[in-house]
Amino acid sequence: MLTISLRGENMPPSPIRKLVPFAEAAKRKGIKVYHLNIGQPDIETPPAILDAVRNADIKVLEYSHSAGNESYRRRLVEYYKSVGIDIRHDQILITTGGSEAIQFGFFCCFNPGDEVIVPEPFYANYNGFACAAGINVVPITSQIETGFALPPIEDFEKVITNKTKGIIICSPNNPTGYLYSMKEMEALKAICLKHNLYLFSDEAYREFCYDGEYVSAMHLTGMDNHVVMMDTISKRYSACGARLGALVTKNKLVYDTAMKFAQARLSPPGLAQIMGEAAVDLPADYFEKPKAEYQKRRDALVSRLNAIPGVFCPNPGGAFYAIARLPITDSDHFCQWLLESFEHKHQTVMLAPASGFYGTAGLGKDEVRLAYVLNVEAIHSAMDCLEEALKVYPGKKQNATSGQLQSHI
Amino acid sequence: MLTISLRGENMPPSPIRKLVPFAEAAKRKGIKVYHLNIGQPDIETPPAILDAVRNADIKVLEYSHSAGNESYRRRLVEYYKSVGIDIRHDQILITTGGSEAIQFGFFCCFNPGDEVIVPEPFYANYNGFACAAGINVVPITSQIETGFALPPIEDFEKVITNKTKGIIICSPNNPTGYLYSMKEMEALKAICLKHNLYLFSDEAYREFCYDGEYVSAMHLTGMDNHVVMMDTISKRYSACGARLGALVTKNKLVYDTAMKFAQARLSPPGLAQIMGEAAVDLPADYFEKPKAEYQKRRDALVSRLNAIPGVFCPNPGGAFYAIARLPITDSDHFCQWLLESFEHKHQTVMLAPASGFYGTAGLGKDEVRLAYVLNVEAIHSAMDCLEEALKVYPGKKQNATSGQLQSHI
Repeated sequence: MLTISLRGENMPPSPIRKLVPFAEAAKRKGIKVYHLNIGQPDIETPPAILDAVRNADIKVLEYSHSAGNESYRRRLVEYYKSVGIDIRHDQILITTGGSEAIQFGFFCCFNPGDEVIVPEPFYANYNGFACAAGINVVPITSQIETGFALPPIEDFEKVITNKTKGIIICSPNNPTGYLYSMKEMEALKAICLKHNLYLFSDEAYREFCYDGEYVSAMHLTGMDNHVVMMDTISKRYSACGARLGALVTKNKLVYDTAMKFAQARLSPPGLAQIMGEAAVDLPADYFEKPKAEYQKRRDALVSRLNAIPGVFCPNPGGAFYAIARLPITDSDHFCQWLLESFEHKHQTVMLAPASGFYGTAGLGKDEVRLAYVLNVEAIHSAMDCLEEALKVYPGKKQNATSGQLQSHI
Repeated sequence: MLTISLRGENMPPSPIRKLVPFAEAAKRKGIKVYHLNIGQPDIETPPAILDAVRNADIKVLEYSHSAGNESYRRRLVEYYKSVGIDIRHDQILITTGGSEAIQFGFFCCFNPGDEVIVPEPFYANYNGFACAAGINVVPITSQIETGFALPPIEDFEKVITNKTKGIIICSPNNPTGYLYSMKEMEALKAICLKHNLYLFSDEAYREFCYDGEYVSAMHLTGMDNHVVMMDTISKRYSACGARLGALVTKNKLVYDTAMKFAQARLSPPGLAQIMGEAAVDLPADYFEKPKAEYQKRRDALVSRLNAIPGVFCPNPGGAFYAIARLPITDSDHFCQWLLESFEHKHQTVMLAPASGFYGTAGLGKDEVRLAYVLNVEAIHSAMDCLEEALKVYPGKKQNATSGQLQSHI
């Protein structure tokens, strides 16, 4: 019999996309669904970067250099300089989205059976790339009470084995919105140096920091060979569909190895590189507007959430996500119920159950992730739905305000 | 010490790109280099498909569906119908180039340690994707004397073990240009059914068949679950830089498994999908012109090659590649020498040493691959260079006309 591979069997389906059929069914019933479930911003892609593609004089759309067009990489050097990162163009490898940067990094640095530590909750697709590469994600739990700050270094020490080869962080974080401080970054540096670990740093959301300074892993000194930065223009310029990212590292061996994987797939997307290059020319204050908009949305979302009885949502310092604890016991059931069995004025809200962002089984069952990618008015409407839903949801905890205790029973 | 992965160490560098520094050096010396080394056509990308991107009304360049836009997949159903392939839109998974289709297929169907049989010479990047997936490519040799026809089925039987899980073919072939006949395809079908093997069919060049009928693996009946087709718009519409391909299979389990890998990387390139969808609207006779152009080039190239003493080049039935045997003993050295130490009227030619396309060590050392991606005039100039070069090359075989015998000593 024909069989599929074990890694294919073990490959996790997207925890975010599994509810899509229920959302589609709700829409067919005429219900308006507020999508707070996915990090697809509604912010306009800067027309100037789309115009760059429209105005490009292309006779033959050729393969680019496997590392991406040199002209684009040289412009990125300027961009990175503007965020305090000192890097050369031959230390930047252009990838198909941040996704491919993660994949190349995993393939280059880790052997099957190796372990990487990731503070949970974390970006669920790390699981998929880890599965493809045959490596094991070892979660250590960050706590909602601390706003999902870096877990104590002792927690890292406890799980480090001779198989441990790296730590993955994402700051500002998806799904928590937490922004690591310099102190936390220095703690990560110390443990990476002590145990000879790679520090994989996913910096997709660096432009969106509200209550603190953005600290890049590339800002840390004395650990150049340890840092592999994964980047993307998806969120920065609201251009998720372009599929353009970068793997950035000063470790020459990692870079040269990644280049071999890059050569095998020939080149990153060509039209998107034109967009990316044009983006470096956007005015210096370009980010002010989207950042202010996201902050307004965050403030609206978080204050509405915390005003609902039994709900707790720490204030995220960056990105455009928040994780909230709800007075429920099964967020998967609740999110499906919102789409299948609930409506408020012919409207409902789609959320992402947080369980999909935890590596430890059983965690996140009373939490949901909310992406504040809709305007303030829509957020208020969505929160109206959530508030009403929690009044009537049959799976609610008995004593809503003591939800935190009950979740540990 | 920080280490890179074993698969990263083992990952083969591109055999085609290693000569690039020598070509750059030649250009710096003012020498014109005819690039017959790489499958980057000079045929214009159809302006209509670039216009489709220019005219697209995009406010936010969003993630597409992980399988690609449904509208594009539905149009592809029509395209495939036009080439005799009967397929549904939910059996098509849009990928980032044909490269990602190969990668997804390998990840889904094969476990580390599994073996896939590939007639050699073959597309060198299969090695890279096999290395990433931890699978072993088992070559069986096709012969230049037969024009690189399918090796006898006994040769397949000889290497089949309990680890063998699939066969990879490419027809019309890169790098040989050979076009498998229906009889050869039926032979492949028989062996796949007998031994329960997947048939991976790389059909990147189907539009360019000159001396025979194109036969798709999808044309074979009674083996729907065995066939995984890998496709791309790169060569079809001279749009290599778009990075748009497809994995096509009627095997639902393989498709659903590939979808999990597709979800992890979110979506294929967005702007390219607009191009791909518009391409289906090109007039029915669109391919006539590029096909006639390639055929003219092939005829010029092959007749010039065979007129050079000691050179033999079988006439390729399709694609835009030919493999020629030269009166030399080390094609890597010869190709480098052409760039480093030779010029004819301030011109030289860049070729791909065929050794990089063989899995068996030592084969292809008297062969080169030529991509006829330049116009007829340029091809004649390039052949002038090659002809002159072979007169003076110091590494030439002593008796040029008996090169074939000598290569086996």
